Amino acid sequence: MEKPTLPKGTRDFGPAQMAKRQFIFDNIRKVFQKYGFQPLETPAMENLTTLTGKYGEEGDQLLFKILNSGDFLAEVDNEKFVSKNSKLLTFDISEKGLRYDLTVPFARYVVMNRHEITFPFKRYQIQPVWRADRPQKGRYREFYQCDADVVGTDSLLCEADIVLMIQEVFGALGILDYTTKINHRAILSGLAELTGSQNESSLFVAIDKLDKIGEEKVKEELRSRGFEDKGIDAVFSILNFKGTTEEKINFLTTQFANSEKGKKGLTDLQEVLQLLQNYSSTGSTNANAHVEFDISLARGLSYYTGCIFEVKINNVAIGSVSGGGRYDNLTGVFGLPDVSGVGISFGVDRLCDAMEELKAFPEEARISSKVMIAHFDESTFHYSLGVARQLRSRGIATEVYPDQAKLKKQLDYANKKMIPFVIVIGSDEQKSGLLTLKDMQKGAQQQLAIDAIAEALKNN
Amino acid sequence: MEKPTLPKGTRDFGPAQMAKRQFIFDNIRKVFQKYGFQPLETPAMENLTTLTGKYGEEGDQLLFKILNSGDFLAEVDNEKFVSKNSKLLTFDISEKGLRYDLTVPFARYVVMNRHEITFPFKRYQIQPVWRADRPQKGRYREFYQCDADVVGTDSLLCEADIVLMIQEVFGALGILDYTTKINHRAILSGLAELTGSQNESSLFVAIDKLDKIGEEKVKEELRSRGFEDKGIDAVFSILNFKGTTEEKINFLTTQFANSEKGKKGLTDLQEVLQLLQNYSSTGSTNANAHVEFDISLARGLSYYTGCIFEVKINNVAIGSVSGGGRYDNLTGVFGLPDVSGVGISFGVDRLCDAMEELKAFPEEARISSKVMIAHFDESTFHYSLGVARQLRSRGIATEVYPDQAKLKKQLDYANKKMIPFVIVIGSDEQKSGLLTLKDMQKGAQQQLAIDAIAEALKNN
Repeated sequence: MEKPTLPKGTRDFGPAQMAKRQFIFDNIRKVFQKYGFQPLETPAMENLTTLTGKYGEEGDQLLFKILNSGDFLAEVDNEKFVSKNSKLLTFDISEKGLRYDLTVPFARYVVMNRHEITFPFKRYQIQPVWRADRPQKGRYREFYQCDADVVGTDSLLCEADIVLMIQEVFGALGILDYTTKINHRAILSGLAELTGSQNESSLFVAIDKLDKIGEEKVKEELRSRGFEDKGIDAVFSILNFKGTTEEKINFLTTQFANSEKGKKGLTDLQEVLQLLQNYSSTGSTNANAHVEFDISLARGLSYYTGCIFEVKINNVAIGSVSGGGRYDNLTGVFGLPDVSGVGISFGVDRLCDAMEELKAFPEEARISSKVMIAHFDESTFHYSLGVARQLRSRGIATEVYPDQAKLKKQLDYANKKMIPFVIVIGSDEQKSGLLTLKDMQKGAQQQLAIDAIAEALKNN
Repeated sequence: MEKPTLPKGTRDFGPAQMAKRQFIFDNIRKVFQKYGFQPLETPAMENLTTLTGKYGEEGDQLLFKILNSGDFLAEVDNEKFVSKNSKLLTFDISEKGLRYDLTVPFARYVVMNRHEITFPFKRYQIQPVWRADRPQKGRYREFYQCDADVVGTDSLLCEADIVLMIQEVFGALGILDYTTKINHRAILSGLAELTGSQNESSLFVAIDKLDKIGEEKVKEELRSRGFEDKGIDAVFSILNFKGTTEEKINFLTTQFANSEKGKKGLTDLQEVLQLLQNYSSTGSTNANAHVEFDISLARGLSYYTGCIFEVKINNVAIGSVSGGGRYDNLTGVFGLPDVSGVGISFGVDRLCDAMEELKAFPEEARISSKVMIAHFDESTFHYSLGVARQLRSRGIATEVYPDQAKLKKQLDYANKKMIPFVIVIGSDEQKSGLLTLKDMQKGAQQQLAIDAIAEALKNN
C-alpha cells in the first residue's frame, strides 16, 4: 500500500504548532474586538465570476478551481471540446474556485448585504486562503490571513486605530523590536509628479524593489523605462533624505509646494500622527512609538489610494509580517462605487516563524492537560476518576492514564506530552486521601489532600 | 453589472451569527482541552488517493475535486480524451479534493506521524468539511465538524470520558433537556445472530429507520430481504422491551446466553456505566445523567466496532446533534492496522439551530464593543481618544464614532450595533472630566469620572 502524503505546499499543524498558532490568533482576535471589530466568515468556495479579474492575469492562474460535480463534460460544446485547450475549457467545466484572499469575499459580502449593514462597518476575518503558487520556503498553497477592515468612512481615525492595533498585537505577542512603516499613496504621486513622467506605476514598482536590489539597479530600471536623469535625481534626493518624521514632513512640504496630490498626502499623514498624539494624552506608552514615515514604502499599489502600512520585525530575516492601507473603491467592481475603506492584514505564518526565531512564545502557548493521574491497579484506577472529576469541575485540564500500565510508562507519557504535573495514586494514597503531586519539571513531589492539590494547580 | 452571489449550499456568517457560533466553538474547545485533547488542523485539500474509496461510491461522487493547475489537458491520453467521459477523465485532470470529513485526514495524519506521536493520542479538530450534496434545509455544502478522538488504546475510560464531555458541553451551552443514547456494535451483532441470518448490515440499515418509518415498514423491509418471521419477532421482542438501563441489560443477558458477541457488548457497556458511576463518586451531578441505553441505535455502522453514541435534544425537531463511537481499524486503509480508537463529533450547525429555537444563547454570545464614545465637535472628538485609550488599556472593547456627525446619528449607530453603553462627551464634560455614561437598553444615564466609568463597565 502506498504511503499517504500531503498535497504540495500544504501542511498539517500538530498540537505543538497549533498551540502556538492559537496563541497568535487569540491575541489578534482580542485586539480586533477591543477596537470594535466584529467577526465575519465567508465560504471557502466562491463563484469564479466573483474571483476572476480581481488579482490580475497572474492571480487568475493561481486560483484553485473546483471541478463541476456530476457529468461535467455533458454540456461542453463538442467543437470547443476537441480543441483540447485547457484555458478555453476551464470555465466550461469549473464554475467555482477557492478564495484567494479575504478582501474580495469581504467586498462581495458588503455589496450583497449593503441594506442590512450598519456603516461604518468594522469587520475582522481570520480564515485560510489558497493560491496555486510554486511552493518554497515560507510560501504555502494554503495559509491564513487575519484581516480587519473598516468600510463606509474616510475618517483618518481608522488609520490611527490601525497603528494602535499593530502596537497592541505586537505587545501582546511579546515582540518588542519592530517598525510600523507608514506612507501615503498621494505622497508617492507627488514624487511621480516631480519626475515629469506620467508613468506612476513604473515608478512605484521600481521603488518597491529598493530594499532588494539597491539604488543603482532601481535607477537603471527607471532609465530603461524612459525616466529622465533629472527626474530620477529629484526622486532620490527625497528618498535619501534622512531625518525624523517631522523633518521629513518639513522637507517634503517645500518639495511639494506645487503638488496638490503631494500636499494632500502630507496633510493626511500629519492628521494621523496628530490623532495618535491625542491618543497618547493618556496611557503609559506613546502611541507614535515604532512608527516611521518611510517615503520609499510602496506596497502592492493596485487598489490602495490613501495611507499605506507595513510592519517589519527588526533583526529577523523575515519580510513584512503585516500590511495594509486605504482603498477608495473596493466594492466598485461589484457595482457599489464610492465605498472608502481601510484595512490591515497580519500574516500568521511569518509571525509564527519570527516568534520561533526570537523564542518569543510564552509558556501559555502550549495546550496540554495541566495534570495526569497515574495509578497502580484496578482499584486505584477507579478511585482516580473521582479525583479527576473534582479537578475538572474546578476548570483544571486533567486526564487519567487510560490503561493499566507500569508507572514508568505512565510517567513517560506525561513527559512526552509536556504535562507539567502528575498525581500518583497508590493504595496508601487511596486510603489516606493524601495524594502524591509530582512536579515533572522540578522532579519535586509532595503529599497533599485534593483541595490543596487543586489550589496548587490553579496557582501554578 | 451582474450582482454577486454565493455558490449554492454555502453561507456567509455575519457578526451576529459568528458570535453565536464562536460561543459554541469556544465551549466545545474548552471541554475538549479540559479532558486532555490537543488541537490538530489538516489542510482543506487532500490528495484524491487519500480521499477516494473511503466513503463508499456515493461519497466519492460527493467529493469536491480540484482542477489541476496549468495546462491540465496536456498530458491526457488522446484516445481517452475523445471519449468525453467525465468519470473516466476526472482523475486525469484532478488529483486533489476538498476534505469530506475530519476522520480520514486524522487517520492519514496518524499514519504519517506515527513515529513522533505519543500514544494514546488524544486530538480534537474543529474545521469545515465540504460535500457536493444537494443543498436543502439544514444541509449545506460547507459545514463545520468538531471532532475529538483518542487512538491507541482500547480502554473504555475513553467512552466514559466521551459521555462526560457531552454532559459538560451541553451544560456549558445551557441545553438541559437532551438524551445521550448509547449502544454497542456487538449488541447489534448479538441481535443479528438471533435472526439466524448472516445479513447483519441489512438488519442494521433497517433498524436505523425505525424512528422514521415505524415498526411495520421495518418488518416489511426485513421480510423483503429474506429475514424469517421468527427472527424478526425475536428482534422486535428485544427492541420493544421497556425498562431502565439495568432492566434492559438483565433482559439481554438472558437473551444473549448463547451469543459471545452479545455478551461482549453487554460487558463493555456495563464497564462504561461502572466507570461513569466511579466518576460520580464526587461532584454534584450524576455522571450517568441523560444516558439511555438504546438497543435500536444503529448509526452509520461502516467502521464502528464497539460502543456507539448519539445525542438528541428533546422537544426540538432537529436530528441528532452529536454522535460517535469506537472503531478498530481506522488507519488500516493507510497501511497501519490494529489502531483502536473512539471519537465523538458535534454538529455545530444543528446545535446552533437548536439553541436558536430554545432561545438558549446567553448575552455573552454577542461580540460588539462594550462602549462607544460620541462627541460634538473637533475638540471633544480629539479629547475622546484619550478616554478610549484608557478604557481599552483596561481591556474594555471601545470604539470612538469615527466621523463628525449629529448625536442622533452616532447613537443610532450604537443602537444598531447593539453596543450596550455610550459615553457622550460635550464641552462641559471635557472641562469637568465628568462624562455622561448612557445605558442604551435602560435609557438611564449618569455623570461619572473615567475611573468610575471603567469600573461600571467592567462590572456590567
